[in-house]
Amino acid sequence: MPEKPMSENVEITLSRAGAATTGGPEAYFTGRVEISTPYKGDAPARISGATVSFPAGARTAWHTHPLGQTLYIVSGKGWVQKEGGPREAFGAGDVVWIPPLVKHWHGAAADTAMVHFAVAEALDGSVVTWLEKVSDAQYAGEA
Amino acid sequence: MPEKPMSENVEITLSRAGAATTGGPEAYFTGRVEISTPYKGDAPARISGATVSFPAGARTAWHTHPLGQTLYIVSGKGWVQKEGGPREAFGAGDVVWIPPLVKHWHGAAADTAMVHFAVAEALDGSVVTWLEKVSDAQYAGEA
Repeated sequence: MPEKPMSENVEITLSRAGAATTGGPEAYFTGRVEISTPYKGDAPARISGATVSFPAGARTAWHTHPLGQTLYIVSGKGWVQKEGGPREAFGAGDVVWIPPLVKHWHGAAADTAMVHFAVAEALDGSVVTWLEKVSDAQYAGEA
Repeated sequence: MPEKPMSENVEITLSRAGAATTGGPEAYFTGRVEISTPYKGDAPARISGATVSFPAGARTAWHTHPLGQTLYIVSGKGWVQKEGGPREAFGAGDVVWIPPLVKHWHGAAADTAMVHFAVAEALDGSVVTWLEKVSDAQYAGEA
């Protein structure tokens, strides 16, 4: 019988809505993005996540995730785009899966705010590789 | 330099709100629970998930997850309980982390419906081990 994985922590953790809100770093986001309720799973789990609020027009920089990322759209309307692909629109209740190592950005639509809950698995301690920012022309679908 | 993980799929997947809705199996849920927008990450990611809607009074059976589970509370009010611990109340925007192998249940409050988005990592192809159902006395916090 295989040995079961053991966790050092056996307590359920509740992170309350709006807890530990910080601003998204200027280098990685365009617009005044707020990140809240960050949490991290206990090993041997690899997951961690947070809730991210984007005002209309705000978006991430281009980036990749070593083991992919899941977005649950809480409210509003937004876009996701894979490099070389079309902008795709999403709304509340939609679930977005971005596969490992796919270069992409996501954010609010131009005229509507958007909130998503985002989780990703860490590989060697890393959940994201940040790249260049999304230009206004790229965001508008013109580049 | 370590070899990077490769995924066979490089397409972003959008699962639309309410897609592929099914009823939660009688053996694993009490009440008329609906499961929608199931998705599964691409290897080497381990994640999969779904959105689960509980009417007032509905709940899961007791269960464990080999690598834990994350709940994002979309709407309403609910409870989570670790075996031997108190019922803990949660509401919209809260994030619940259940560590690996912790026996627990979660569901709606007695008088309020609840919707959560749930994700978990698979270990050897398994994301959950189902156990006995939660009795009315256990649900009421009386057992």
